[in-house]
Amino acid sequence: MFSTNPFDDDKLREECGVFGVWNADVAASFVALGLHALQHRGQEAAGITSLDGAGFHSHRAQGHVAGNFDRDDIIRSLPGRTALGHVRYSTTGSSAMRNVQPLFAELADGGFAVAHNGNISNAMKLRRTLNRRGSIFQSTSDTEVIIHLVATSHQTQMLDRIVDALGQVEGAYSLLMLTEQGLIACRDPLGIRPLVMGRIGDTIIFASETVALDVIGARYEREVGPGEMILVNADGVRSFRPFAAAAPRPCIFEHVYFSRPDSVVDGISVYESRKNIGAVLAEESGIDADIIVPVPDSGVPAAIGYAQASGIPFELGIIRSHYVGRTFIQPSQEVRHLGVKLKHNANSALIKGKRIVLIDDSIVRGTTSVKIVQMMRDAGAREVHMRIASPPTRHSCFYGVDTPERAKLLAAQMDVEAMAKYINADSLAFISIEGLYRALGDQRSAEAPQRCDACFTGDYPTRLTDMTEKKTEEAGLLLKAVV
Amino acid sequence: MFSTNPFDDDKLREECGVFGVWNADVAASFVALGLHALQHRGQEAAGITSLDGAGFHSHRAQGHVAGNFDRDDIIRSLPGRTALGHVRYSTTGSSAMRNVQPLFAELADGGFAVAHNGNISNAMKLRRTLNRRGSIFQSTSDTEVIIHLVATSHQTQMLDRIVDALGQVEGAYSLLMLTEQGLIACRDPLGIRPLVMGRIGDTIIFASETVALDVIGARYEREVGPGEMILVNADGVRSFRPFAAAAPRPCIFEHVYFSRPDSVVDGISVYESRKNIGAVLAEESGIDADIIVPVPDSGVPAAIGYAQASGIPFELGIIRSHYVGRTFIQPSQEVRHLGVKLKHNANSALIKGKRIVLIDDSIVRGTTSVKIVQMMRDAGAREVHMRIASPPTRHSCFYGVDTPERAKLLAAQMDVEAMAKYINADSLAFISIEGLYRALGDQRSAEAPQRCDACFTGDYPTRLTDMTEKKTEEAGLLLKAVV
Amino acid sequence: MFSTNPFDDDKLREECGVFGVWNADVAASFVALGLHALQHRGQEAAGITSLDGAGFHSHRAQGHVAGNFDRDDIIRSLPGRTALGHVRYSTTGSSAMRNVQPLFAELADGGFAVAHNGNISNAMKLRRTLNRRGSIFQSTSDTEVIIHLVATSHQTQMLDRIVDALGQVEGAYSLLMLTEQGLIACRDPLGIRPLVMGRIGDTIIFASETVALDVIGARYEREVGPGEMILVNADGVRSFRPFAAAAPRPCIFEHVYFSRPDSVVDGISVYESRKNIGAVLAEESGIDADIIVPVPDSGVPAAIGYAQASGIPFELGIIRSHYVGRTFIQPSQEVRHLGVKLKHNANSALIKGKRIVLIDDSIVRGTTSVKIVQMMRDAGAREVHMRIASPPTRHSCFYGVDTPERAKLLAAQMDVEAMAKYINADSLAFISIEGLYRALGDQRSAEAPQRCDACFTGDYPTRLTDMTEKKTEEAGLLLKAVV
Amino acid sequence: MFSTNPFDDDKLREECGVFGVWNADVAASFVALGLHALQHRGQEAAGITSLDGAGFHSHRAQGHVAGNFDRDDIIRSLPGRTALGHVRYSTTGSSAMRNVQPLFAELADGGFAVAHNGNISNAMKLRRTLNRRGSIFQSTSDTEVIIHLVATSHQTQMLDRIVDALGQVEGAYSLLMLTEQGLIACRDPLGIRPLVMGRIGDTIIFASETVALDVIGARYEREVGPGEMILVNADGVRSFRPFAAAAPRPCIFEHVYFSRPDSVVDGISVYESRKNIGAVLAEESGIDADIIVPVPDSGVPAAIGYAQASGIPFELGIIRSHYVGRTFIQPSQEVRHLGVKLKHNANSALIKGKRIVLIDDSIVRGTTSVKIVQMMRDAGAREVHMRIASPPTRHSCFYGVDTPERAKLLAAQMDVEAMAKYINADSLAFISIEGLYRALGDQRSAEAPQRCDACFTGDYPTRLTDMTEKKTEEAGLLLKAVV
Repeated sequence: MFSTNPFDDDKLREECGVFGVWNADVAASFVALGLHALQHRGQEAAGITSLDGAGFHSHRAQGHVAGNFDRDDIIRSLPGRTALGHVRYSTTGSSAMRNVQPLFAELADGGFAVAHNGNISNAMKLRRTLNRRGSIFQSTSDTEVIIHLVATSHQTQMLDRIVDALGQVEGAYSLLMLTEQGLIACRDPLGIRPLVMGRIGDTIIFASETVALDVIGARYEREVGPGEMILVNADGVRSFRPFAAAAPRPCIFEHVYFSRPDSVVDGISVYESRKNIGAVLAEESGIDADIIVPVPDSGVPAAIGYAQASGIPFELGIIRSHYVGRTFIQPSQEVRHLGVKLKHNANSALIKGKRIVLIDDSIVRGTTSVKIVQMMRDAGAREVHMRIASPPTRHSCFYGVDTPERAKLLAAQMDVEAMAKYINADSLAFISIEGLYRALGDQRSAEAPQRCDACFTGDYPTRLTDMTEKKTEEAGLLLKAVV
Repeated sequence: MFSTNPFDDDKLREECGVFGVWNADVAASFVALGLHALQHRGQEAAGITSLDGAGFHSHRAQGHVAGNFDRDDIIRSLPGRTALGHVRYSTTGSSAMRNVQPLFAELADGGFAVAHNGNISNAMKLRRTLNRRGSIFQSTSDTEVIIHLVATSHQTQMLDRIVDALGQVEGAYSLLMLTEQGLIACRDPLGIRPLVMGRIGDTIIFASETVALDVIGARYEREVGPGEMILVNADGVRSFRPFAAAAPRPCIFEHVYFSRPDSVVDGISVYESRKNIGAVLAEESGIDADIIVPVPDSGVPAAIGYAQASGIPFELGIIRSHYVGRTFIQPSQEVRHLGVKLKHNANSALIKGKRIVLIDDSIVRGTTSVKIVQMMRDAGAREVHMRIASPPTRHSCFYGVDTPERAKLLAAQMDVEAMAKYINADSLAFISIEGLYRALGDQRSAEAPQRCDACFTGDYPTRLTDMTEKKTEEAGLLLKAVV
Repeated sequence: MFSTNPFDDDKLREECGVFGVWNADVAASFVALGLHALQHRGQEAAGITSLDGAGFHSHRAQGHVAGNFDRDDIIRSLPGRTALGHVRYSTTGSSAMRNVQPLFAELADGGFAVAHNGNISNAMKLRRTLNRRGSIFQSTSDTEVIIHLVATSHQTQMLDRIVDALGQVEGAYSLLMLTEQGLIACRDPLGIRPLVMGRIGDTIIFASETVALDVIGARYEREVGPGEMILVNADGVRSFRPFAAAAPRPCIFEHVYFSRPDSVVDGISVYESRKNIGAVLAEESGIDADIIVPVPDSGVPAAIGYAQASGIPFELGIIRSHYVGRTFIQPSQEVRHLGVKLKHNANSALIKGKRIVLIDDSIVRGTTSVKIVQMMRDAGAREVHMRIASPPTRHSCFYGVDTPERAKLLAAQMDVEAMAKYINADSLAFISIEGLYRALGDQRSAEAPQRCDACFTGDYPTRLTDMTEKKTEEAGLLLKAVV
Repeated sequence: MFSTNPFDDDKLREECGVFGVWNADVAASFVALGLHALQHRGQEAAGITSLDGAGFHSHRAQGHVAGNFDRDDIIRSLPGRTALGHVRYSTTGSSAMRNVQPLFAELADGGFAVAHNGNISNAMKLRRTLNRRGSIFQSTSDTEVIIHLVATSHQTQMLDRIVDALGQVEGAYSLLMLTEQGLIACRDPLGIRPLVMGRIGDTIIFASETVALDVIGARYEREVGPGEMILVNADGVRSFRPFAAAAPRPCIFEHVYFSRPDSVVDGISVYESRKNIGAVLAEESGIDADIIVPVPDSGVPAAIGYAQASGIPFELGIIRSHYVGRTFIQPSQEVRHLGVKLKHNANSALIKGKRIVLIDDSIVRGTTSVKIVQMMRDAGAREVHMRIASPPTRHSCFYGVDTPERAKLLAAQMDVEAMAKYINADSLAFISIEGLYRALGDQRSAEAPQRCDACFTGDYPTRLTDMTEKKTEEAGLLLKAVV
C-alpha cells in the first residue's frame, strides 16, 4: 500500500525484477516469495527455473506470482536446491510466453538459464549478426542475444564464454544465470540496475531489492558491485571483475519511484530518501497552504517529509481503492468519463474550502495530474498547488524502463509554467536536479554525474547503438522520400 | 489503499453491499461501478439483476466485480433502465452460486429480485414453517425466506405482500427489491445497516455507502430512514412507513472499520470520525514515544488523528504489499512461518531504536497483533505501545457481520492487561465506549444507546430467535446426554 | 459406431436416459458407467445424485459423461451405496444448469431427487396452479412440477405423496426417485418410455436400456412394467400398482432408431428388429441394384438385413468420420457449402458406375437425405434408390422426443413421390406401418395399436392438455385479432 | 466410423498428417478442413501456419482440430492465401507445445515453417553436431534438425539450402515447407510416407491422403514422387529431383490400417485393398463358421471381403460406443476390470451359440484381442476363430510410426500357435506376407521388396544411425558394468 504505485498508467515502469537462491531446501519456494516481494517491478508475467540432480525445471506464467507460483503443485514441479526467477512486464500477443523469463537453452555443455533486469542497447545489431550465422531466435527478447553469444563463443569454459558474451554487449544488465557449474550473478560495469546479495544460514540469495531478502528473513550482505561477477557453487562464493573498471552510474529513479520504500538501495533507505526529497521540495518551493495531500500511494513518503518540514498537516485527501487492477475495463461508453474515480476518490468532507498542496513523485504524460487536480477542484478545494518529488522527466530511458516516446512526455513538450496551466494547478514546482542529489546526500558532478539521471538530463552513460542506427536508417528513409 | 483493510483475516467482516438504479441508460453499468466502490463490503461474489421490457436479466459470479462485471458482453446481457446489485462474502462449496444475490424468483404475479445487507435473526424458524407447507428452498440464504413469505402471502398487492413478509421478520435488513411495479428500498425499523439515496439528473440511486454515489458522480440526497420503505417507478418516488416506529440503532462499527474513510455515514465523515477517535485515544491513553505508526491500511486515519493530537510524528513504519489477496497460498511448509511478511514488512531503517505507538482499528482474535508487535521488535523497536481505535470486541454480531464465535474473540477471553502480555506489547489501551461515542459527537445513553454497539457491550437491540432456540435445543441435547 | 447416430441433426432425438443403483460400493461409479452407455439418449448434460449417511450429494455438468464423470475427484464427491443419474439434451442459455437432472429438493421430510425420461403433457397447467399457491420454480423443466406436487401433497407418507403427485400428471414418464425411504422406480401406466431392472449380486439396477446393464456386467432381470412402482430399500424390493390398469403402448421408435442395436427392448433384440425391418423392406420394395449401402451408422443393421434378404452385396459406400461432434463449427463462409463431407465421405472408388440402394432409418426434415443422394451422384453412382426403415414421420412426439414442428417434417408436407423428387433419388420407399409391426412380430391392431406409433399415425395414446390449451389460446388471440 | 480405429491403444499409430494450400482465399480454413479429415493420423495436437503480406501467422493447440481450428477467431488470426498445417501425436509434459508443428523459425533470409510426416533416423547425431556449433534447439522434435541445417547451410538460395539440409538427413520424410519464396513439398527418396497433390481451380493442395482433398472438393492430381521436390509460387508449379534416384519403398501398413478406407494410396483404393486382403485371408485360412464378425472399426472392410469370399454372413457381433475417447478415465477401482466394455459391447442376442470368425487388422500387444475373445465367449459364442488382415507384427518402425518396443510386440515373443493360446482363440491365422502383396496386386520381391514392410520382416530400407549408436553405447555401458 504505501509502496510503489503499480496500477498507474501514467508512471515510468521498471521492467523487471530478479531473484536467485543457492543451497536451500525447495529453493523454488524461496524464489516464489522473493518474486512476490518484487512484484511491483514487473506485474505481467513471472517464471522460475530450478536445477536438481535430474536437470533443469521451469515454469512460466502470465499474471502475478500469487495465483501462479503459490500453488504446491507448481512448486513441487520445481525441485532442487538452487533456482532463479524473474518478474516482468510482457508485450502482448500469442508468442508472449516465449519472452517470459528465465530464458532457458540446452547448450552443448549443459543447460543455461538466465534472468535479466535491464536492457541491451545494441541487441538488434547483435541479433542480426547472429541470425546471419544461423542462430535461430526463439523470442523477441534482447536477453536471448546473450544466450546465443554464449552458445557460439569459442571459449571452452562456461565462465569464459559468459564473459566473452557480455564483452560484446552494451547497456544495462543485472543478470542471474544458472548452469551446472553454479549460480552466477553479474551486474554491468556501470551498475545501472540494482542487484543485492543476502544470506540466510548457508543459503545465498541474490535479488533486485532488499525487500525480497526481508520477506524470507534473509540478511542483507552487500550489493553486487558494478562490473562484478559472482559464482556460487559447492566450492563457495567467488567474485570476479572481468570487465574494465568504470565510474558507477546507478539509476536515480529507483529512489524516486521504482523501489519499494522499505528497500535499501545503494545503502540508503528509500523511505528516508523520499522523506528527504519532500523536505528539500518544501524548502525549494514552499507555499502557504492548509493541508498536504499525497497522491497515493507513491507520493506518501515525500508528502510526510514535506509536511514535517513545512509544519502544514499531512491529510488523506485522496482515497485510493484496493480493488482496481490493470484489467478493469470500464463497463460502458456511458460511464467512461468517470474514469479516474474508479481508482481515486476525493475525501470531499476534508478538501472542501481548503488550500491544498498535492505531492506526487513524477509527471510523465500528465494525464493523471490533470484528473487529480480537477478532482480536488470538484471536491471544493480553494487552491491546488502541485509539488513533484523529481525533476521534469524529459528523456526516454533505454536501460530497462518502459518510458513513453519523448513526444508523449509532458516535460519534453512544454516548460513548467505551461505545465501548470495544462494541469490547471494554481502553482506547480519540481525539485531541482541538484536538490534531488542533495536529498540523497550527494552534490551532483555535472561532468561525471554519480548516478544515471538521463531521464531528467539526457546524459546517457553508454552508447545507444540500436537507437543511433535506427535514427540513421530513418534519416536514410527520409532522404529517399525527399529525393 | 487508505480505505478499509479487506485482506486481513483478523478483522470483522461486513457481509454485504447493495446498489440499485432507477431510470438510467444501461442501468447495469452504473450498478457495476457502484458495486466496485462497495467491494470492501463483500469480496467473494457479486451479482446484478436488471429489468427491461423483455423481463429480468441476471448475472452472478464468484470473485470481484472487476474481472466479472467490467466486461462489455456481461453488461450487454443485462439490458434495461433499472437494475440492482449485491456484493457478498460467500460460503464455500458447490452450491455457493445459489446463494449469490440478487436472489430472483418468478412469482405468480411476476418476477421478484432482492438484494439484502443484514441478517434475519429468525430465519431458521421461518424456514422450517415454510418448508412444512411445501415451499422448496433453492439456497441456504436467510434472504430467501423473504421471497417465500412474499410468494405465499395472502395479500393481493405486491407492496402489501412485501410488508406482510417483512412484518414476520426480525433482525437487520437494508433491502433493495426489483419488481415489475418498480424499484423498492427498505431498511429495518432500527436502521442497523446503512442505506443511502442519491440522484444524478433524473436517475435515482440507492447504495450502502456514499462512496458508491461518488464513483458515478451522483449527489447524496439523504439516508433511507430506519423503518422506511421507498417505491420508485414511473409515478415518481414515494415513501412509506409501514412499521411501528422505534428508536434507531445504526451500527457503530461502520465508523470504526467497515465503511470507507471517504464515505459519509449517519451524516458524519468517516475520515473525520476516525481522526477524532485517534485524538480521543491520544487524550485517554497518551504515552511518551518517538513515532506514531499506523497498522496499514485501516489504522491510518486514527493514527493521523493521534499524531496531530499528541504532536508525535506520524511515520510509515509498516509497508504493506499491494499484491496479497486472499488467494495467496504459501508455497511450502518450509516457508510457512514467514507468514505475515507477505502482507506487511517493517520499515526497519525507520523503526530501529525507536519508541513506537502502533495504531490499529480493532483487535479480534489478536493473531495479527501478535505478529505485528513481533515484527516491530525484530526491526529493532525500543518500545512498542499498541493503541486501539475501538473498545474491546467481546460479543458476536448477529446482524450481517461475520464475527468469530465468542471463544475466539481475544477480549472475551482476557482483560486488557492479559491481552498486552499476550501480544507482547509494552502497553496496550483501547478507546472507551464513552470516548467512542464522544468522538462521534454523542454522549452514550446507557439505557437506550443511540447506536448498536452490541459487539462491544452485548446490548442487542432485537430478539435473537434462532440463537435462543439453538441454545435451548443444545441444552436439551445436553440434558438427554446427561440423563 | 454401429450404434445409433447421435450427431445427425436430421434425426428425432430421444431426450433422456436414466440409471439408478441400490446397494453398491461407490454407487456413483456404477451410475457414471451406466450413463456413459446411455449417452446416445442425451448428450448435452448429465448429473448424478448419491445418498449416504451424511445426506445427498449431487454433481451436474454440461457435456458428456466422459470428461465430467470419469474423474476420481467427482466420483469421490458422490459417496454412498445408492445413487441415480440422468443424461439429457438441454436447452441453451444461462439458466440451463438449473434444468440438468437429477433435480433435487430439500422437502420438509427430507431430500428428494428425481430423474425423468419422458414428458408431462399437462405440466404448464399444473405449474400455473402451483405458482399461484406460492410454489417457486427453480427450473423450466416439466419434471419440477412433480417435486412441487409431492412437496405440497396432503398425504403424510412419502410413497403416498408420490402417488398423489403422479395421479395429477398426464403423459409419459419413466422415473427414478431417491429419498431417505429408498430408491423408487416408476413407469407411466402406458409404459411409453422404457425402463428395465437388473441385478448384480445384491445390487439392484434400473436403467433406460439393457446396454447399461451390460457395461457393468449386470444381469437383465425384467422390465419395470407399465404403471408399476418399485421401492427398493433395506427391506428389499417391493412392487406396487397404484394406478388404474391400461393397455400398454411402448414407443415403437425405440426399435427404429433410439435404442442401441445391442439393447433388448420389450424383450426383443434391437439388432434383430432392425435386420428384420431391412428384410421386410426388401420384400415390400425390392429393386434391382449392384450394392446395398447403409447411411452410417444407424442404417447399418437394416442394410445388412436388406442385403441378406435381397442377395445384393452389402458395401461401405459412405465413410463416416470419427471426429465430428455437434460442436464443429465450420471454419468460414468460404467453405460452408462443403458441409456434409465433414461427417460423411463417399467411397468413390466403390460407388462409381454402380446402381446403389441407400438404407437409412428415417427421414425427418430430409436435409441429410438430399446431401447424401447428391454425394452418391457426385461420386459417380449410376442409380440411387433410397429405402427407409420406418414409415413416413408425419407427426410430432409429445412424450419426451425432440421432434421438429410439423411444418418441418418432410413427410407432413408431401407424399412419397414428391419426396423422392425432392431428395433427387431414382426411387424412394418406406416400410409400411403394418410391415414395421410385422418385423417386430406383431400384427397391428388399428383400434388399439400395441405400441405408441403416433409419430407415424397421429394416434396419441394420452390427452395433450398443454397442447390443446395453447391451441385454444391461440385461437382466442386469433379471434381477438379478427374482431 | 468405418474408418480407422483411432481410440485403440493396442494399435500402431501413424504419427502425423500434413496439409498445405497455395493460392486460396482464407487458405487456413482449407487447411483446418484438410487436417480434420486427417485427424486419424494424429489426434493429440494440431497447428496451422499461414503467410500473407504482413508475414507469418501461427496457431498451435493441443487436442483435436475440431474445437480448436473450427473457430472463426482462430481462422481470422491466420490470414493469407497460403498456409500449411499438421496433426500429430504429441509427447506429454510441459514443453509439449514446443513440439507441435508446423515448426517455425525466423531465419536471416525470412521466415521458415515446416510440417513433417516421418522420422529422421540420424536426428540425434545431427543434433549433437549442431548443438556443439552453437545452434540452440527449441524442441525435442527431430524435425527441428532440418531447420537448423537450413539455417546454417552455406548455400545462398533457399531451395539450395533445403536440398543441402535434406542431403544430410536419413530416414522418412514427407515435408511441407512455407517460405517467402513459396510453398515447397518434398518426399524422401524412398517415398516411405505418403504425400499427394490436388487442385481445385487455381488452388494447389498437398496432403497426406486423398480424403483430405475430398473434404474440400479438390481433385486428386498425382502423388508427390519419391525423391521429388515441388515448389509452388507465383511463377507456377515446378518439380525438382535433387536426390539420387532409388527404388521406392512406400509403407505397406498404410493399406493395412493407417489410411482411411476412402483414401486412394499408391493409386489403389484402400477399401478395395482391405476387402482383397479379407478375401485372400479367407482363401489362405478359411474355416467353417456361422458368422463373420469384424472387430470395429478397422476390421470391417476385411470382414466384408472375407464374408463375400467365404459366403458366411457378415454380422455386427460387437457394437462400439461412439463416446469413448482416449480421455476416459475409469471412475474407480471397483469397476476397473470392466474395461473393454466401455468401448465394445457384445451383441449377445446374436452371438449366443454361434461359431464366429473375428476379423481384426493386426495384433500388436495382444491386449485387446484377449479381451475381445473373452467377450465373445462370455456372450455365449460356441467357437471363436481369429483371422488377422496382416502378417505378424514383429519389428519396430523407425519411420514415423509409434510402435511399442519389440519386447512388447506379441509376435516378437511367440509363434502363432502360442499366440492363439494366449488370446484363447479356437484358432488364429494371419495373412502371409506374400498374400498381403498379392492382395495389393504385387508379387513380393524378396531381394528388393516393392514396399517398406520392415514391421513384418525386419528389412529396413535405410540406415538407422541413432539406433545403431544407441546400441553401441548401451553395449559400451554394459561392458563397463561388466568390467
